[in-house]
Amino acid sequence: MEQRNNLDGPAGEKEFVREITPKSVDFSQWYIDVILKAQLMDYAPIKGFMAFRPAGFALWEKVQELLDKRFKETGHQNAYFPLFIPQSLLQKEAEHVEGFAPEVAWVTRGGSEILAEPLLVRPTSEAIICDFYSRWVQSWRDLPILINQWCSVVRWEKSTRPFLRTSEFLWQEGHTCHRTEEEAEAETLQMLEVYREFLETEMAIPVLAGRKTEREKFAGALRTYSVEALMSDGRALQAGTSHNLGQHFAKVFDIKFLDQDDQLKYVWQTSWGLSTRTIGALIMVHGDDRGLVLPPRMAPVQVVIVPILSKKDGERVLEAVRSLADQLKEQKIRVKLDDREEYSPGWKYNEWEMRGVPVRIEVGPRDLDKDQVVTVRRDSGEKEFIARNELAAQLPNLLEKIQNDLLKKALDFREANTRKGSDYEEFKKIMEEQRGFFIAPWCGDDHCEEQIKIDTKATIRCLPFGLKPEQDHCFACGKQATEAACFARAY
Amino acid sequence: MEQRNNLDGPAGEKEFVREITPKSVDFSQWYIDVILKAQLMDYAPIKGFMAFRPAGFALWEKVQELLDKRFKETGHQNAYFPLFIPQSLLQKEAEHVEGFAPEVAWVTRGGSEILAEPLLVRPTSEAIICDFYSRWVQSWRDLPILINQWCSVVRWEKSTRPFLRTSEFLWQEGHTCHRTEEEAEAETLQMLEVYREFLETEMAIPVLAGRKTEREKFAGALRTYSVEALMSDGRALQAGTSHNLGQHFAKVFDIKFLDQDDQLKYVWQTSWGLSTRTIGALIMVHGDDRGLVLPPRMAPVQVVIVPILSKKDGERVLEAVRSLADQLKEQKIRVKLDDREEYSPGWKYNEWEMRGVPVRIEVGPRDLDKDQVVTVRRDSGEKEFIARNELAAQLPNLLEKIQNDLLKKALDFREANTRKGSDYEEFKKIMEEQRGFFIAPWCGDDHCEEQIKIDTKATIRCLPFGLKPEQDHCFACGKQATEAACFARAY
Repeated sequence: MEQRNNLDGPAGEKEFVREITPKSVDFSQWYIDVILKAQLMDYAPIKGFMAFRPAGFALWEKVQELLDKRFKETGHQNAYFPLFIPQSLLQKEAEHVEGFAPEVAWVTRGGSEILAEPLLVRPTSEAIICDFYSRWVQSWRDLPILINQWCSVVRWEKSTRPFLRTSEFLWQEGHTCHRTEEEAEAETLQMLEVYREFLETEMAIPVLAGRKTEREKFAGALRTYSVEALMSDGRALQAGTSHNLGQHFAKVFDIKFLDQDDQLKYVWQTSWGLSTRTIGALIMVHGDDRGLVLPPRMAPVQVVIVPILSKKDGERVLEAVRSLADQLKEQKIRVKLDDREEYSPGWKYNEWEMRGVPVRIEVGPRDLDKDQVVTVRRDSGEKEFIARNELAAQLPNLLEKIQNDLLKKALDFREANTRKGSDYEEFKKIMEEQRGFFIAPWCGDDHCEEQIKIDTKATIRCLPFGLKPEQDHCFACGKQATEAACFARAY
Repeated sequence: MEQRNNLDGPAGEKEFVREITPKSVDFSQWYIDVILKAQLMDYAPIKGFMAFRPAGFALWEKVQELLDKRFKETGHQNAYFPLFIPQSLLQKEAEHVEGFAPEVAWVTRGGSEILAEPLLVRPTSEAIICDFYSRWVQSWRDLPILINQWCSVVRWEKSTRPFLRTSEFLWQEGHTCHRTEEEAEAETLQMLEVYREFLETEMAIPVLAGRKTEREKFAGALRTYSVEALMSDGRALQAGTSHNLGQHFAKVFDIKFLDQDDQLKYVWQTSWGLSTRTIGALIMVHGDDRGLVLPPRMAPVQVVIVPILSKKDGERVLEAVRSLADQLKEQKIRVKLDDREEYSPGWKYNEWEMRGVPVRIEVGPRDLDKDQVVTVRRDSGEKEFIARNELAAQLPNLLEKIQNDLLKKALDFREANTRKGSDYEEFKKIMEEQRGFFIAPWCGDDHCEEQIKIDTKATIRCLPFGLKPEQDHCFACGKQATEAACFARAY
């Protein structure tokens, strides 16, 4: 695929070149076109790596801001642990090393010396963090430990896709220690709920929450929970995971505390993470053939003002839009005034549309005469004339309405693409066509799960909370059904 | 040195154990004691690496918040570039590779494959960023590019010291492209001024700004500027650097743009960085024998409220301090209510003192009867009785006063430890005793600078702005003096 195409091409009257493949023609190409044209990322000179350009990184900054606030409200603090992990530490937890060793990057030289023990670039930080926790935890007074880390991690991937699967990605990883099993389980579920609420409220991405199967759980965990989103091409995406680690790591890393009853006990641990792949989800859930569509709460620029300038009325219009921009800024609306002279208004409309800005405000001399402005919604294209003195009052409502409408649209799409049933032939057909979630009665057997994957490429995304199998028999193998499982083809 | 000593030791009546070596006995040990006891960091299982514990990372989060705001106000955007750099990219700029190659960590294996070309973990990102810029910059319309990155970098150091010199550290690196030489120089100086103002306003660390000598400049730069701080043991610390890269990188990475006059031109570039070593400076400039002393603007917790509880009056006091804490929070004061029952008030006083919280508020039953609270300043120990209904109004002033007093104290110290002169013997003695800055007329010769370093271990920290040599002859070699140079022993 061609890599880059600078937006700042022809000026003035020259035509704006969108060059976005329609979703219906080739969804994968549409996705790549949108992220390159909206300048969210660029490919690195190393296979599988990418740079987050300012427009893309600003989305991650929003995730950080909005999620970090929630972490702190639930009592967590941030810390930072070393980038490198000695090989011997990774090897302590057997399942963990088996899960991660095949996909790590190894540092074998430092300066001019060959390292006696190779170091791995963190693919996740349980091993190194547990090493620290074994010293930090001594007494029940040290508990709970509620720590989060924002960082980059490296997993050597064979097949990559920008934001969704890259050899380096950005994420947060929470790592907590507790006195009791109940407390650890409550924390695991609390953080899953933080993810669900964040994704729905801020990103307008509805998710299905549930437990992962043994096969799909985190390497070294007791239980893994996840929130699963549905992309607009009918494929699922795991948007966040939360693991109850039990005492697996505590025992191998020797994390013990003296409890109030004077007994030495192992701690109970959790870990939970959400990554830059959610940016990919944001693009795929809301974007359209004209480019990016950003929910107002996530949009670095919520409103762009484009003045329509002429020689005669230029100054008058500029003055009006500047005062408008100031007024909106005071209201804490993230506004951008695009007063560049080297581009025409039409060119700017197209550019900001492609970049997904939720609301465009157009102001020309005739609008000034009528004391009005024009607002255009990015999501629906809806155009409205609003009296200038009412704009400041109406804009917050408009932004909220767009936010709600985007969530509703995504919910409707998911509703329309979630089937419940126990007809395996119907299931196979739907999976072949990648048409969303299929919820079916399932036996809980690892081999059955494997066979379904071989048959259809579908995996169990999660065992949704609160659902029971609606039939006695597994829809695939016919054995006793114990679970209601949600299947999908996934990213 | 012993590595860790958990604070949460004896409860209740048991004595608080401070265990901080006095500064006057052993400054290096004092520094290590403070950062371990205040739980700012812990040593990693890899030599030269460390973890930022929550109390330490919170200081870096403050740096990020306060500096990032300034970057955005000056028109910069954040982005994120790959962690790894192909060897061939580093090698493009000759001086750059010579400067950095000896101290990099090399990734030679990814998953199960041996890499055809080794990758280096970024020691700084000029090379990889220039590779991207060569594609992002096409037209004068794309300029200026004003990008910053917050990340971790790795430099394989032989001798390390927590925060000050570690094989991995956190920093920000700004990388900009401009149309003209003048614009690049203005940006370089603007960012140096941002550092100066930030360090003095927020961290209460006065700095000397100036140009680096050829010998001390950044590998690959045209000119390097720095801000230099003086630690309380009389040694200097480089707190931030800003480089005018000229067209060195543009030419080897082929970063060209079509200017308005239809000519293809190379861009002019800058880069600038400030790292977690400033946290080390914060500790060394303000700390004392009782532990950390934080300037209020940098303090994650500005005010701690310690209730004095008794069985009889416990509820009444708790109710009062809770309402006090709520009131201060509403005023945007960062307040912590320490209502733990397992520690005595005296123990808490000691702990928060060691952790550097600027103001402690004590509230007991007798204070309630008198409708007052007690405030205690961390920096001076000054105790004051304040009427409860006046506290909210007075506290912001008190915090501001502490901030100003800390800056003034540091300025006075620097003043008292800055000598101007041209007596080389006096200079040698002062450098041997590590007593601060020495400003002297200097010839500008590289060999002379080298000889001075051999004689005294002192380096030229910078050629301070606005200073001219006060004598005609170099104080060291007697040749024509062209500069006023600031010498010091440095971290």
